[in-house]
Amino acid sequence: MAGKVYLIGAGPGDPELLTVRAMRLLQSAEIVVHDRLVSPEIMALIPPAARRISVGKSAGFHSVPQDQINGLLVALAREGHTVLRLKGGDPLIFGRGSEEAEELAAAGISYSYVPGITAAQGAASSTGVPLTHRGLATGVRYVTGHRARDEVLDLDWSSLADPDTTLVVYMGAANMAEIAARLIAAGMPVDLPVLAVAHATTPREARMLSDLTHIGADLARAPMEAPVLFMIGRVAGLHETAALPLPRDLRAAHLRVVGHG
Amino acid sequence: MAGKVYLIGAGPGDPELLTVRAMRLLQSAEIVVHDRLVSPEIMALIPPAARRISVGKSAGFHSVPQDQINGLLVALAREGHTVLRLKGGDPLIFGRGSEEAEELAAAGISYSYVPGITAAQGAASSTGVPLTHRGLATGVRYVTGHRARDEVLDLDWSSLADPDTTLVVYMGAANMAEIAARLIAAGMPVDLPVLAVAHATTPREARMLSDLTHIGADLARAPMEAPVLFMIGRVAGLHETAALPLPRDLRAAHLRVVGHG
Repeated sequence: MAGKVYLIGAGPGDPELLTVRAMRLLQSAEIVVHDRLVSPEIMALIPPAARRISVGKSAGFHSVPQDQINGLLVALAREGHTVLRLKGGDPLIFGRGSEEAEELAAAGISYSYVPGITAAQGAASSTGVPLTHRGLATGVRYVTGHRARDEVLDLDWSSLADPDTTLVVYMGAANMAEIAARLIAAGMPVDLPVLAVAHATTPREARMLSDLTHIGADLARAPMEAPVLFMIGRVAGLHETAALPLPRDLRAAHLRVVGHG
Repeated sequence: MAGKVYLIGAGPGDPELLTVRAMRLLQSAEIVVHDRLVSPEIMALIPPAARRISVGKSAGFHSVPQDQINGLLVALAREGHTVLRLKGGDPLIFGRGSEEAEELAAAGISYSYVPGITAAQGAASSTGVPLTHRGLATGVRYVTGHRARDEVLDLDWSSLADPDTTLVVYMGAANMAEIAARLIAAGMPVDLPVLAVAHATTPREARMLSDLTHIGADLARAPMEAPVLFMIGRVAGLHETAALPLPRDLRAAHLRVVGHG
């Protein structure tokens, strides 16, 4: 009899931001197939006897090719196992969870999703910078800033250049200078605030407040540990007045606010 | 000594989709100030002895004016209470959590955020329709489709008309015919799939699959109980092949798939 696969979002990193369902499943896990970037605090919740299989994937881009991950999930479920497929954030936002589900469905394997708090929500709640705010942002948009080697960034810049929408860029650190320049070229204000956040909600959280003109140079001068999330929009300016503190013990080491006054 | 306010996301409705932190806080709650649309299953987790104060707010629009809610939170915290401010979804996405936080900060009251699974993520995980998917959607965008009485819908239609982005419309049921028409006028395909989902992740979940041309008429013919969330984009078409079942006991009563073949 075939097993089942749970496609689970691990959220942004803090184990208390797992959903209750994800926590329950992890604590009784038999086999966990996980991405590299699931936080060590969350990996520590898995019972010692459980089998852990790292597929080395970070935020949508794999060291193990996707078809091998799919094959592994199918094979484990066919052996009758209950398999937890654990991904950072939410499996249905840049997590390729639905691609894995298609393969499971084609193989007749039962599956279900457990959503997770996305990195954008984690960064918002820990920094205090909202994703929408009256008078500053009427909506929010998530895109990826990654590109395959030598390819162009395939984004609709004129659509993205909406100053009433908070733009959150995942996986964009390597290309942020270009992204910022293209957004300015498409009409976004040169001084639009940008808040870069790494490892949000964990003791390793780091932040950098900049703007579209300076973010590329600021990142070059003070590189942040991947993955870095960028919150672009007027809401990011609230970090100057409404920011919540970083975890106390690491504040001095990690708070890097770069000003351009 | 002043108390503290927790601005907490209740998620989409299923209590197992609360974060572990939200669940822990709710189960030891003293005072809960809650929106009307927090699910009964979640309200049932609050200890019987706790004080519950409904502010009747539904998804950003209040029966109790926002300044009165702000004043209530400040007053309760000044009396030394730990106050849980419980909102549907996530407090920082259409939840006005940061507006309440501004008032708390101005009054010198300490606060923190607990994020929640948004309705869009809840609908994605329960229906099986992803928010991003290779070849179908490279990003996702959340907007509100509400407007104040007699006002025009103030949305940037040309920016919204990006067929590579999944567009999720919150609070849009009353205006969906107009929203669909404007998206078509701005260049979106007439047959772009639209999945409407009400009460996602609860036993009351209902769905309707339609397209931009027909969604207005379909909703008029078969109204759905508010709040309804709309997933607009090629990903919604996956509901025809990859949909997960509704809760078994209610399937016959609630699954309403309207076709246009």
